[in-house]
Amino acid sequence: MNNICELFGIQYPIIQGGMIWCSGWELAAAVSNAGGLGLIGAGSMYPDVLRTHIQKTKAATNNPFGVNLPLLYKQTEEHIQVIIDEKVPIVFTSAGNPLKYTSYLKKNGIKVAHVIANTKFALKCVEAGVDAIVAEGFEAGGHNGFEETTTITLIPLIRKVVETPLIAAGGIGCGKSMLAAMALGADGVQVGSRFVASKESSAHPDFKQNIVEAKEGDTELMLKKIVPVRLLKNNFYQEIKKLENERAGISKMVEHLGKGRAKKGMFEGDMLEGELEIGQVSANIDNVKPVSEIIHSMIEEYRAQLRQLPKL
Amino acid sequence: MNNICELFGIQYPIIQGGMIWCSGWELAAAVSNAGGLGLIGAGSMYPDVLRTHIQKTKAATNNPFGVNLPLLYKQTEEHIQVIIDEKVPIVFTSAGNPLKYTSYLKKNGIKVAHVIANTKFALKCVEAGVDAIVAEGFEAGGHNGFEETTTITLIPLIRKVVETPLIAAGGIGCGKSMLAAMALGADGVQVGSRFVASKESSAHPDFKQNIVEAKEGDTELMLKKIVPVRLLKNNFYQEIKKLENERAGISKMVEHLGKGRAKKGMFEGDMLEGELEIGQVSANIDNVKPVSEIIHSMIEEYRAQLRQLPKL
Repeated sequence: MNNICELFGIQYPIIQGGMIWCSGWELAAAVSNAGGLGLIGAGSMYPDVLRTHIQKTKAATNNPFGVNLPLLYKQTEEHIQVIIDEKVPIVFTSAGNPLKYTSYLKKNGIKVAHVIANTKFALKCVEAGVDAIVAEGFEAGGHNGFEETTTITLIPLIRKVVETPLIAAGGIGCGKSMLAAMALGADGVQVGSRFVASKESSAHPDFKQNIVEAKEGDTELMLKKIVPVRLLKNNFYQEIKKLENERAGISKMVEHLGKGRAKKGMFEGDMLEGELEIGQVSANIDNVKPVSEIIHSMIEEYRAQLRQLPKL
Repeated sequence: MNNICELFGIQYPIIQGGMIWCSGWELAAAVSNAGGLGLIGAGSMYPDVLRTHIQKTKAATNNPFGVNLPLLYKQTEEHIQVIIDEKVPIVFTSAGNPLKYTSYLKKNGIKVAHVIANTKFALKCVEAGVDAIVAEGFEAGGHNGFEETTTITLIPLIRKVVETPLIAAGGIGCGKSMLAAMALGADGVQVGSRFVASKESSAHPDFKQNIVEAKEGDTELMLKKIVPVRLLKNNFYQEIKKLENERAGISKMVEHLGKGRAKKGMFEGDMLEGELEIGQVSANIDNVKPVSEIIHSMIEEYRAQLRQLPKL
């Protein structure tokens, strides 16, 4: 049995990335019901909202699920208390130091994975004693590494230095890219963008449609001075681009950002002035489908592609 | 039999990328002798120098080999005349429009592949009637696409729209990444950086050593206004970075570049002031080895990794 499946008690080694404004209880439950691991994205939730989403997920699936917790916000410890109270079995932490909460979470019986984008932090994950590492490439929707290392380069590098179960992220939205990730040495994959464009995601329908329409070159990795994210190119992106070109300071950038622009874009559907975070793989997403169909076709394509790989 | 092997009459679907100052006759012949396809990099050669390299390659191997011809230089038509005179069987064109020379080369009995970095140019390749397409991701040493699409995203996209034999490039330097490229839908791989750090490449020994020492984040895609290339970070890179940050015009950039800086760096070994073009995969290259060992270990690792891919 695959070690990621065994670790989390799931059927397929497919993790749904926790994404602000897009991954609530409905998406997480759908992914877990379809045999993957659904994650509630806590980044855009107040603690009481997170609690509601956890309770609704538990009501909607009997399968394991988790919470993604970006370590960027003031309320992290309140979030953790909710997670422990509600007996969530799995937490994926990201955008911070894995040494901070891993042992505390594990003491509370929670399985912990942490998201990194370079070897240095992969080794910190080992030191922290995480159960799994997510290594995320430049092509991902965010939060990406400053080194811009892409998935095909990153995964063999990380594999070389860690034995911990390894999940690849960035550029994975179909069975071919999933198989590629496993070929690179990953034990499983984390899929973000493809699940944003699912029926069950809480992304605004117009955002889903924009993902379907996105082509090569329609995203760019931005905000490298603050927290790197990949943006779909709209008015908001142009504003950020202008500030970056003017070499604006961090405070000016943060001031500009600090207006709920991500919610405005991804959740409320303002396709011009909102912040739209998405991966490069959006260029290869052509439809909005139910989660069960997405997972089913990924696995079918994975198997078909595996059968036809030349032995050489 | 694999279609790339059949097309070029080679044992393994491994193409050695044609690289200025690094891929002369010795490298090309070594790759062809080891069962791959060696390419002489014409970009840094005067026509008479190219002729000498072709003749030496013919003397050093009985296997098929080719010439890589970046369509950037004034002497392209003289190069083509040399290639036809010397009966070179295979040409890889790059950095230009495939419609320009493909039919002329093919009329002269030459097999033609063209290097692209997006779907638009892949379709132009089909229109031009090329025999194979090389699709090159953001992580490659150059010349990269403006869209910054990475290999894991690019290959499934191109595979979806073209049936032409497809060669993946960018981030491929080991058996794992080779297998990943095939999983993505490629029929073969083009390998650049890994062969620069080979015994037989004409790169300066100090450049080879710098590749071995390179870590994550030590390269960056630069010169996007002119011809995008990925540079190892040294003084030359810092100068370019400064000009780009000052939003210097193309003429100022070209003036700065127009001093044989690539030769100075990669061939003559000035590790500070020379231009050092290399891929992200340099972070995963730990030694300088003979070409035969490089190819042997790639194939061994490919086979081992293929055997252990989970069926799911």
